[in-house]
Amino acid sequence: MRLLALLDGTLADPEAAHVRVDDLGLTRGDGVFETVLVVDGRPRELGPHLDRLLRSARMLDLAVPALPEWERLFATVVAAWPEPGEFAVKLVCTRGAEYGDGTPTVFALAFSIEPHTVEKRRNGVSAVVLDRGFDPGLAERAPWLLLGAKTLSYAVNMAAQRHAASVGADEVIFTASDGSVLEGPTSTVVVVEGRTLRTPPASSGILPGTTQAALFRAAERAGWAAKVEPVLVDDLAAADGVLLVSSVRRIVRVRTLDGVDLPDATGPWTELSDLYEREYA
Amino acid sequence: MRLLALLDGTLADPEAAHVRVDDLGLTRGDGVFETVLVVDGRPRELGPHLDRLLRSARMLDLAVPALPEWERLFATVVAAWPEPGEFAVKLVCTRGAEYGDGTPTVFALAFSIEPHTVEKRRNGVSAVVLDRGFDPGLAERAPWLLLGAKTLSYAVNMAAQRHAASVGADEVIFTASDGSVLEGPTSTVVVVEGRTLRTPPASSGILPGTTQAALFRAAERAGWAAKVEPVLVDDLAAADGVLLVSSVRRIVRVRTLDGVDLPDATGPWTELSDLYEREYA
Repeated sequence: MRLLALLDGTLADPEAAHVRVDDLGLTRGDGVFETVLVVDGRPRELGPHLDRLLRSARMLDLAVPALPEWERLFATVVAAWPEPGEFAVKLVCTRGAEYGDGTPTVFALAFSIEPHTVEKRRNGVSAVVLDRGFDPGLAERAPWLLLGAKTLSYAVNMAAQRHAASVGADEVIFTASDGSVLEGPTSTVVVVEGRTLRTPPASSGILPGTTQAALFRAAERAGWAAKVEPVLVDDLAAADGVLLVSSVRRIVRVRTLDGVDLPDATGPWTELSDLYEREYA
Repeated sequence: MRLLALLDGTLADPEAAHVRVDDLGLTRGDGVFETVLVVDGRPRELGPHLDRLLRSARMLDLAVPALPEWERLFATVVAAWPEPGEFAVKLVCTRGAEYGDGTPTVFALAFSIEPHTVEKRRNGVSAVVLDRGFDPGLAERAPWLLLGAKTLSYAVNMAAQRHAASVGADEVIFTASDGSVLEGPTSTVVVVEGRTLRTPPASSGILPGTTQAALFRAAERAGWAAKVEPVLVDDLAAADGVLLVSSVRRIVRVRTLDGVDLPDATGPWTELSDLYEREYA
């Protein structure tokens, strides 16, 4: 099931063509996006997602619609989705047609959650560590590299996922050139150490995670400690648990890393998942 | 003037929509491209461009049409272009619609050369050196980063160009973390030292240049030496000339680097441009 909404509030056929071949989103990956989970008609972390979309757009000097227009677009999709349960909404804004009038291309594409996503939530994943090749100081030093912006230029993220699949793994954890942990291609890394959660800082050139922030909020309220500070790759194997968190997959246990079993994190994962879900109860 | 051709040999309206919103070229920058110059009905370096397109596609595990299909598509465009003189053709292949039947999206978009391109050819450009953040060994070590593949994920290349414009410069020369020269966002760097040309090796994670290869061929035949070996950023200011070469702009002099005048390279530039043009006479 899919449903496409355009900025003018109309619904459109998601299988029809709506984009020109000279759209800079297509020819240059020049645009931004967010993916938001909706459960029983209620979006999760819509505000933080839209804030991040606007922040990404600023990093790209991209003129995007204002917050109320995004909220209206989102509400259109939520109102039109015909099924109970959960679905996801991808919000996209590109720089528009290269030979056009400068109008950005904006749409919201809602889609059902796929069975393999549900399976990963339930059973956890295997992951491999892959070098992302940059040092943690680069993002601040070189803003033109757009580290920490959620752009449409995701070819590397997709190639890393394919590389993982080619060695029999489900997921990737990227590391910086100094051996510090960065993020997954489409997720935030959270390490569980006793009653403490830890995730790498956004200043290292990664996306600030909307789901990670919600999880930290919920966990802190329940007495956990939650720290945003560097995580070394060696910390992963030594931790009580490694989680990959993201909007659509929610909270996922990493069961093996580079083919080696990690400690069984079912206990803390169950508790943290419950705390996270209660944020929206 | 623009002209759009599809893989089935038909021409289509370049201002109409032809692409779905879930095309992975749009949502993930997941595809490859080449831009080929055509002068007086004759394409320049079409073979090397198509070879590079297929090489990029292999790096992305992307199923693309075979060489004869690309050649047919290209011939369609050349035959249909109604004006004399020169134009450029962008060849694009994406992974197709995410929720589709797996067919790649393929097209050729021909377009007139813009006046600012002609102006850069004639008058040269100002350039700034920007850190690309990776070391020259990374490409071989981390193939999932797609360094050296010409993908649609060009947001960083575009952001670097915008950064250059924001400090009053026309172009960018990227450097690696060890201070070695890489490439421009859409061009190859060539250094002139006496009667010797030098360009950095593709193994450093850059695109092998089709125009650079043609220029080296022509120059060597005329008695120049041409070397593919590392270039340090300090070599740029010390050289007799710095050139940025690319298909559409051809051979462009860098007049100033980070705001400092470089030696006047009009002499070697004129000779090398003549040699390059004679390749196609």
